[in-house]
Amino acid sequence: ASIVVLPGDGIGPEVASAGVAVLRQIAERFGHDFTFTEHAIGGDAIDRFGDPLPPATREACLAADAILLGAVGGPKWSDPNAPVRPEQGLLAMRKLLGVFANVRPLKLHPRAAALSPLKPERTKGVDLVFIRELTGGIYFGAKTRTDDAATDECRYTVGEIERVMRHAFDLARTRRKKVTSVDKANVLETSRLWRSVATRIAADYPDVELEHQLVDSMAMHLLTRPADYDVIVTENMFGDILTDEASVLAGSLGLSPSASLGGPGAGVYEPIHGSAPDIAGKALANPLGTILSVAMLLRHSLGLSTEADTVEAAVDYVMENGNLTRDLGGDATTHAVTRAVLDACE
Amino acid sequence: ASIVVLPGDGIGPEVASAGVAVLRQIAERFGHDFTFTEHAIGGDAIDRFGDPLPPATREACLAADAILLGAVGGPKWSDPNAPVRPEQGLLAMRKLLGVFANVRPLKLHPRAAALSPLKPERTKGVDLVFIRELTGGIYFGAKTRTDDAATDECRYTVGEIERVMRHAFDLARTRRKKVTSVDKANVLETSRLWRSVATRIAADYPDVELEHQLVDSMAMHLLTRPADYDVIVTENMFGDILTDEASVLAGSLGLSPSASLGGPGAGVYEPIHGSAPDIAGKALANPLGTILSVAMLLRHSLGLSTEADTVEAAVDYVMENGNLTRDLGGDATTHAVTRAVLDACE
Ligand SMILES: CC(C)[C@H](C(=O)O)[C@@H](O)C(=O)O
Ligand SMILES: CC(C)[C@H](C(=O)O)[C@@H](O)C(=O)O
Repeated sequence: ASIVVLPGDGIGPEVASAGVAVLRQIAERFGHDFTFTEHAIGGDAIDRFGDPLPPATREACLAADAILLGAVGGPKWSDPNAPVRPEQGLLAMRKLLGVFANVRPLKLHPRAAALSPLKPERTKGVDLVFIRELTGGIYFGAKTRTDDAATDECRYTVGEIERVMRHAFDLARTRRKKVTSVDKANVLETSRLWRSVATRIAADYPDVELEHQLVDSMAMHLLTRPADYDVIVTENMFGDILTDEASVLAGSLGLSPSASLGGPGAGVYEPIHGSAPDIAGKALANPLGTILSVAMLLRHSLGLSTEADTVEAAVDYVMENGNLTRDLGGDATTHAVTRAVLDACE
Repeated sequence: ASIVVLPGDGIGPEVASAGVAVLRQIAERFGHDFTFTEHAIGGDAIDRFGDPLPPATREACLAADAILLGAVGGPKWSDPNAPVRPEQGLLAMRKLLGVFANVRPLKLHPRAAALSPLKPERTKGVDLVFIRELTGGIYFGAKTRTDDAATDECRYTVGEIERVMRHAFDLARTRRKKVTSVDKANVLETSRLWRSVATRIAADYPDVELEHQLVDSMAMHLLTRPADYDVIVTENMFGDILTDEASVLAGSLGLSPSASLGGPGAGVYEPIHGSAPDIAGKALANPLGTILSVAMLLRHSLGLSTEADTVEAAVDYVMENGNLTRDLGGDATTHAVTRAVLDACE
């Protein structure tokens, strides 16, 4: 299998190389042949090629079996009025690959739960997955700007909603069989369409329960009763906000993986944390979010579920044994934690 | 002063009448002349007049000195595809009165903090105010719908951003002199305009610090370090989500007041909780969110700050003495709590 690695900015290169090390170890142990090619994205790509998603990166991504991404962005490129910005690389890649379903599982590891800002009785039993629509909505709609005003259009087609909804229902079937669809149907036309498509698709899944939630209520329920949710599906902008809100429950951003799926080609796997420029180059970054993203890569893009289970079990083992980076209250380096995972994967 | 009362739906009438009782008590104690006229809004207005904001309500609101609102909506009218819906009354009223600044203070009463899903060390010292833009953005932009697709336009003019921004900076001057402006400037054109106006207005307030936050990061920081914020200003849709998220920190929705200000005429005052149809008519509703909204009404629309202080002190006293409704872990009725506040206002 051919894996494209996009290290990106800040701690991106450090965590991406941890992910690659784990993939190499898995290849060796299970006798697979993985090839890795690195390409530029984000701020790093702007600095080197003047383009946050250079043509060589595009071509490589289109030809890959799977893509492992570090992180993108940083204060150096953070002027929102700059003509080219790192996150344009990310958005362009999502569109190029057509990865319309961003998947973010949220589970609380006991070690990290202690660090959650939420009281333990609230987070007990939390085991949910967000499906965020990733290639439509206000992110990609028409924009205008004059001296006096600006506009952004949010647009959804029936087809765009259908495919992400099916993704959510298919996933719910393999889990606790409950889908919560989040919208703002009391105000937005796109949300009324969203809700009607959700209801129609649900008819094809009589074994799965569908519930609708307004986005403002959802922002509350995620904190008051997160354990009540199984699969939560929502549009791009709401998903951006709610997944970040929910990620805080886990105690550390450093632990959470994500996958962007659904396109005709490769899926994109990345930790949910950002480029954390303040700790870049100091070996303080938690590699586990990336390593758990590697497990998702093995499972979803390569169909290697035993291998994925092995990686996840190794991460559990390492955490149980207190091999923790600073974000989890420990003092292990990125390398030490990665090494411990490699040993546990043997 | 002429006060229009809009009881609305569910527990709306119960809490509104608690608010009116407190206003009457204040009028008597301080020798003011308040007149009250009740009008229909929301589902109740749909049932009685086929219109969620009937002409008589409109006229009364335009002529009022202040408006006290209960709550609007309920399952009976919750079909998002119905031709008339309760929340249209609310949206039309905001636009009619031009109340562009929705003000939501967030403070944690020690009694309620114990009920917060957040650990006490996280919520310690929280004292912030949200200013949500309320008459622009995607709520009021052009909408389209075909069989195949739907659109909603988010639009902001420089003038709309300027006035709400000045409101935020003026408020920050009376507080800890810090404004956090929330946008999604790495993706949205309206947010880039928002950010540039914020930066320009900040130049007129050299004594106030301005910080920009992306909405997704803000959704996290509200949970990890809420005590770091003073005044948070944001656009309509982001404000809807973030204020509801933040309201959970307080331990009970039943305690939080709001004011919608900035129009040429009356301000609108209402508790942040909804119509709670499940407990309507049972005397279980917490009247304190409405009573604290009455304090805001006295202060902002009637310029009666001693009277406002009296109401707030009375609420504190009642809570200290454990006179609590069910949402706060007590078993006092709406009436008993209201009576206790009235006694404490004497
Ligand atoms: C960097 C930014 C454009 C991006 C988004 O908003 O989608 C990020 O916040 C994310 O969630 O992946
Ligand atoms: C009822 C609804 C239209 C309203 C809004 O979204 O503004 C409510 O959620 C609020 O926050 O006042």
